[in-house]
Formats: sequence, structure tokens, C-alpha cells
Amino acid sequence: MTTEDAAELATVVARVRERIDPDPAERERLAAAAAALSERVREALADRPVTADVVQVGSTARGTWLAGDRDIDLFVRFPPELSRAELERFGLAVGREVLPDGHEEFAEHPYVKGEFEGFDVDLVPCYDVPAATDIRSAVDRTPFHNAYLLDRLDDDLAADVRVFKRFLKGIGAYGSDLRTKGFSGYLAELLVLEYGGFEPLVAAAADWHPPVERDPEDHGRRSFSDPLVVVDPTDPERNVAAVLSAENVARLQHYARELLADPREELFFPSERPPMTAEELRAQLDRRGTTPVAVAFDAPAVVEDQLYPQLEKSLEGVVSELDRREFEPLRATAFASETGDDADDGAPFDRAVLFVELGVDALPTIQRHDGPPVHVRQHATGFYEKYADADVYGPFLDGSRYVVEREREFTTPRAFLESDALFDVALGAQIEGQLEESYTVLVDGDVVALAEEFASELRAYFEPRP
Amino acid sequence: MTTEDAAELATVVARVRERIDPDPAERERLAAAAAALSERVREALADRPVTADVVQVGSTARGTWLAGDRDIDLFVRFPPELSRAELERFGLAVGREVLPDGHEEFAEHPYVKGEFEGFDVDLVPCYDVPAATDIRSAVDRTPFHNAYLLDRLDDDLAADVRVFKRFLKGIGAYGSDLRTKGFSGYLAELLVLEYGGFEPLVAAAADWHPPVERDPEDHGRRSFSDPLVVVDPTDPERNVAAVLSAENVARLQHYARELLADPREELFFPSERPPMTAEELRAQLDRRGTTPVAVAFDAPAVVEDQLYPQLEKSLEGVVSELDRREFEPLRATAFASETGDDADDGAPFDRAVLFVELGVDALPTIQRHDGPPVHVRQHATGFYEKYADADVYGPFLDGSRYVVEREREFTTPRAFLESDALFDVALGAQIEGQLEESYTVLVDGDVVALAEEFASELRAYFEPRP
Repeated sequence: MTTEDAAELATVVARVRERIDPDPAERERLAAAAAALSERVREALADRPVTADVVQVGSTARGTWLAGDRDIDLFVRFPPELSRAELERFGLAVGREVLPDGHEEFAEHPYVKGEFEGFDVDLVPCYDVPAATDIRSAVDRTPFHNAYLLDRLDDDLAADVRVFKRFLKGIGAYGSDLRTKGFSGYLAELLVLEYGGFEPLVAAAADWHPPVERDPEDHGRRSFSDPLVVVDPTDPERNVAAVLSAENVARLQHYARELLADPREELFFPSERPPMTAEELRAQLDRRGTTPVAVAFDAPAVVEDQLYPQLEKSLEGVVSELDRREFEPLRATAFASETGDDADDGAPFDRAVLFVELGVDALPTIQRHDGPPVHVRQHATGFYEKYADADVYGPFLDGSRYVVEREREFTTPRAFLESDALFDVALGAQIEGQLEESYTVLVDGDVVALAEEFASELRAYFEPRP
Repeated sequence: MTTEDAAELATVVARVRERIDPDPAERERLAAAAAALSERVREALADRPVTADVVQVGSTARGTWLAGDRDIDLFVRFPPELSRAELERFGLAVGREVLPDGHEEFAEHPYVKGEFEGFDVDLVPCYDVPAATDIRSAVDRTPFHNAYLLDRLDDDLAADVRVFKRFLKGIGAYGSDLRTKGFSGYLAELLVLEYGGFEPLVAAAADWHPPVERDPEDHGRRSFSDPLVVVDPTDPERNVAAVLSAENVARLQHYARELLADPREELFFPSERPPMTAEELRAQLDRRGTTPVAVAFDAPAVVEDQLYPQLEKSLEGVVSELDRREFEPLRATAFASETGDDADDGAPFDRAVLFVELGVDALPTIQRHDGPPVHVRQHATGFYEKYADADVYGPFLDGSRYVVEREREFTTPRAFLESDALFDVALGAQIEGQLEESYTVLVDGDVVALAEEFASELRAYFEPRP
């Protein structure tokens, strides 16, 4: 980078920081709320026959949250001698006392979620284990992560973490949920720490040759097959970037280069894309000349982290079968519409769609079927006798093999998708259940009906970006 | 084989022999004609300042011809000291004197072909070299082959050679011309000799596991990559079966098994198939649901052994390009119609056709084009910049790679076949020249027009047999 480019990037970062740095008032409000909540927790614990403490964790504990984020995470650490049942009982009791209007949620074990002075509070019981390698549940690890980062992030690095997180959000690579498969907050913070700031991290990422391996504590003792490996400083057996997809690594690399080549705020705050209209969708289909097909069904009543892996598996199954059946899939995607309900109250998703664009709309009645080489006598004779009097073309010879041309099972994608053969592909378990109940197949112009419910997803699909 | 099966096969062979064994009158007529011709040659040689002899070769010299064959081959052996020009001069002079109504033909060097007492006579000059390994021209080898077989074929083996040759003709695998790529007469005779008769040969062939290697004189000293290797007893460097295709080896294996399983005369004398009518062709196209395309053009003025390799090369080029362009070729063939003229008088072939059946009649406007992995920075940036502002979809990411969807060059097979891109494929040299002059593209129903000129070829294509 030239000095001029560096200055330009610094200017952009400064403008981004104006938009994402929490101001002193926000910091104070948050600190006060966290302190008041912690005090309430301590009071609730004092009445109970157990020794435990409370620790604030998460980005709001470390000054790495983006202005406007309203999450306060409090972990209540109980002695490891406690049974899991006792931990849950004490944890929920304390939670209900501190957040009387809260409700239970469930991760690896139940916790209480509620509102307090305008903040979204998670009150999570965990075990106070001696080291992150001794954890009994994934949540036990969080206080160690928190302590590690708190010790090392000064104000400048915390500011750079915020900038990097905003960048990841801007490019669509933030979040370790199984739909995004992007960078978790913890991973983002470790990377900024590891590379010494936002700009050196971005400059390094632009040049990465995956697999990229970083081990901040130099204590890793196993190998990983992931494109990015950041060995957890609190657990040598764990890759913090295990969920991160190769595509999101490439995405960071692409946008890192974009940012360095032409620094601009837009990469941090991309303009929202308008939903796609039915007319636009129709025009795209005309322009592309492909054969779009969709399998639409009621989404199973599961949370996003369960739904998307199942959608992905089902989509892969359908695409590979359409490919095997020579319909030449060009590109595919899956999406689901949110009901707007909370996961607790009802199904979070309404309709789900497996969408595949095909290169071929109809195939010949016949299909080539290669037999064995003629010299493999027993097998070859078996093949010949099987087909000699059958309603096929051949057997004839192609080189040293028998070949027949026999009737193709499905000559159109609709015929396949509407048949029971759809259930021979590997589908997500609960999606298979839903499809067994009912589903709709849309082909060609039919898919325009999707524009109403999936306008944003279709915009993203038909106007793809890195 | 059970005794009963063997008896059944013997009965079939006996009936075949009744139809193909030359009767004593035919043998006598032929011997008399050959003797008279040889005497004429000796007289013609006596007048000339050169020492040479005449030798009768070919199947009629060895009793291995099929009744009705009317070929007499006489080779005139000149001293190897003679220059090629002198050899040709003497050879043609003797030929013209012996066969005053004959005409010149040209193989590796010119010879005279003519009629004598109802027989077709080839009078070929060659060098009288000490061994087949010393030959100066391919024809010099023939007298050695002849001598080798004459020494070893008794009447029974000669009879079995005739049966095997008739079998090869029946199954369509006889002839080492470059259209058939089948068994030459010499190869057929060597195989019968090597396996000790027709029935043991057929029984062995049914069980062959190519590559099959036989070396009657046990003197082979190089390796071959052909499916069947029979080392020439007169030349350890030569595979007599070099021209034989893997398909014809498989064909012999297939029909050998058929003959052993169900001995029948029909395999030696298959009934002729009626030519295909336009109506039948139309019905086949409907039934198959494929997209047939044909490139029709005036055949170049070359003999069959030059035309067919060029047709094959051109067909392979066109098929592989149609495949690369995703039109999914299912099967293909090439054929040419004979003019009925002799090769000397004019072009032996009239029209030629490259015929391909496709699985796809039209493709989307767009085509996926994979770019480099994003981490290969220079290459990736070059790709991204090339397409960023181009009229394409993307670049976007698929896994760690850039991808674009760009306009497809040809969305129909006709568009490709009628374009100059046809000339980017590997075509036979003289076929390329003909196509540059003019050609016609037939698609779908258009190909019915071929039924008139290529009725037999189309029957064989649409009702394929081993």
C-alpha cells in the first residue's frame, strides 16, 4: 500500500468508526445496567445454598460491540461438583428472580433470556471449571474466551475489532450460525489480535493461501482440514474457525482486496437491495434461457441452525440426482421464509424451497446404458441375454463393450421431482418428513410465484455477487 | 461343448461347406487359368533383359478361396538390384503383354489388373528378397506369407479356413480395409492354423481376454498395444492383426459364443436387411426422442481406404466438440454413397454424411464459466477485473472459486454446425476441403431426406446388432 492509499483507508475506517463506536452515554448506560444486573444475581445467589459467581462476557463486556447492539451476557459460574440437574435448577431459579419477565431458552442446557432497561439479557448458568479443556458443556468455555481477550485487547484493538466485525457484516460473512458459516465474534477478535489490528489483518487476508493456520498460544497438537485454522488459545484441540466455510474465507479475501484497492465505506455498509419483482424475475428467466425448477414445502418446525444444514443436504441430494439424470444443473439455492414468530412460540419458518436452475428441460426417450466388456464372458453373456429380447436398441458393440439404448426413466425434471424417486436421494431427515406430507413442484414460469415470498433471496440469486 | 452340441455344430459346418467349397470343376478351371497365365508371364519375361520368376499367391493359390471368388494373384519377382523405376517399367510391360485389356492400378507401386477367362487377375511386380524382413515394399512380403501357409495348410485346414472366412463375412468382421478394420485373409488363415481348425479357434475366441498374443514361430521381439497380436511368422516385428479393431475382436467373441450356444447357418449367411424407408426413419426418430443432426457434403475424390479414416477422424472431431458444447451426443456414424464408378475413372464416392444423434436440442443462453480459486491472487484478480464490468452474471463465489455465467456461443447444434467453429475441430484433410466448399446441415426431421441415399446404413444404425 502506498502512503496515499493507507491514508485513504484510514479515512474510511475513521468514518466507519463514527457510525459504529458506542458513544460515552451508551457505554455508561450499558455498564450501569450490567452492574445492576450482576448485583441482582449476587443477591439471588446469596439466598441459595450454593457458592457461585457472576461474570459478564460477550462483546459488551469487552468493548467490542457495535453501537446499538443491546446484548448483555451474564454467566453464572457454579461449582463443578454440582449435578447438571442442580445446575439447571439453580440457574433457572436465579434467572427468573433476576429477570422476572424473562423466558427460558435452550442451548446445550436451559437459560433465561429477558429484557432489562432496554437491553437484551442472556443469563446463562455454567460450570466454574479450572481450565477450558475441562469444560462439561460448550458454554463453560465462554468465560475463558472472555478472560483471554479482556487481558489482551486494549482500546485500539477493541476499536479495530468493531471495524472488522462491521466489515464482515457488510460483506455477509459475519456469524457462525449454520446458514452463514461465517466468522464468529470470538474468531474476529482473535484475528484482529493475532494480526495486530484491522488493516494488517485485511492486508494479510488478501494474500492468504488456504489452508491458513494460526496458533496464538503455539500449543496446537492436532491437525485440522479446515481452510482457516485458528487454534483456540484456551483449548489446543479446538479450531475456532471450524464452522467457517471455504467460500467465506474466499469472500473475506475478495473484499479485503477490494478494500485495499479502493477503500470505501460502502463495503462496510452496503446499500440494501430492493426485493425482486415478479416482472424482474420473469425477465431474468427469459434472459438466461434456463429451466428453473423448485420444490416448495412447509418448513419443518426447527430452528435455523437445524433447518439450513438440512436444506443444504437436501439440495445437494436433489442437484446431484438431477445431474446424474442428465438435466445439467447450472446453479441452485435453498431458502426459507421466516414466520416472524419466536422459535419458542411456534415454527420459526413458514415455507421452504429447493431451487435448481437446469440446462435441459427435456431429454430423449432413450438412454444409453453401457454393458460389460464382451471378454468378461459370464457377465457379458448375462448382460446380452438380459437385453437380447427386451424392448431396447441393441445390445450392440461400442469398442469392446456391449451397449443398449433403453427407455429413460424420466424425460423431464418435473416427472422426476413429482415421482417417488425424489425420496431415493439423501434428504434432511425432517425435510424428508415434510416432503412425504406434501410438496409442490414448480417448473419454468411457475417459479415466478416465488417472487412474492422470496423476493430478496431471488434478487441475491439472480444478481449474484462475491 | 457336449457331444450333441459338437455334432450340431459339425452339421452346420458341413452345410456351410456345401455352399462355399469350390467344386472340382471350379478348381480345375482356376488351376488351368493360373497355369496359362503363369506361362504367359514366363514368355513375356523371356524376351526381356532381366531374370525374374512368377509365383501364384492369395487364397486361390492355397485352396482357401470361397466358391465363386474369381481372383487370381500372380506376383512377378524381380532381382532386388533393380531400381524401383526399372521394376515398375518391367512389371507394367509384362502386365500389359499378359493382360492386353488390363489397366493399371496403384498400391505402393503400380500393377496391372485385368480379366482372363472370367477370372479377375492381379499381376503384381515385387522384389525377390531373401527374407520377409528384407522387403523393400509391402507387396514383397506376400510370397513369403504364401509359402508359409502352403507348407502348413493341408486340405482339412484349408477347408476350415474357408469356413472361418465365411463366418467372418457373415458377422461383418472380414477384411482389413480401413472401413471394416476386420480380419484379413492371411490373419484368418494363421488363426485357423494356430488353433488347429475352425471349431477349436471359435471355442478359444469365445474365451479370449484381450490382449491376446500368439506367436506361431515364437520369434516376436517387440510388444504391441493391439487387442489381438499375431506375430507374423515371416517377420518378428509385425503384428498381422495390427489393423483389427477392438470392436471386431469383441464381435468375433460374441458370435463365437452364439455359434457354440446355438449353431446355425444364419450366422454364416445372414439374411439381407431391407433398406430403411423414410416412414420407418421418421417412426424411429419419434420413438427415440433424440435430436439427430447431419452434415452432408460431396465426398472427396479418394478411395475407400482414404475416405473412411478421414470420415472417422472428422466424426470424432465433431462429436467431441458437440459434447464439449454440451449437446450430449448419444451415438454417431458416418457413411458415404458409392458412385458405382471405378476408382480410376472418377470419384468412387458421391455424397458423405457425418450423422450424430444428440440428447439436447437447445441450451440456455448462459453458460457457467469457472474462474480461478480466489487465493491465487494475481490470476484471481485478473479474472475478477476482466468480468467485473462485463455483461455477465457475477463474478460470484462458489466455494473458493470465482464463477461467472456468460453468454453461450451456440445454443443450438445447428448454429454450431453452420458456423466457422466447425472448422476448429480436427477434420480429415480432404473432408475439411470439401466442407470449405459447401455442406448442408440437417436437423431433426430434415434427416429423413437421407433415407433415399443411405437406406441400408440407416437401417444398420437404427437397428443396431453386435
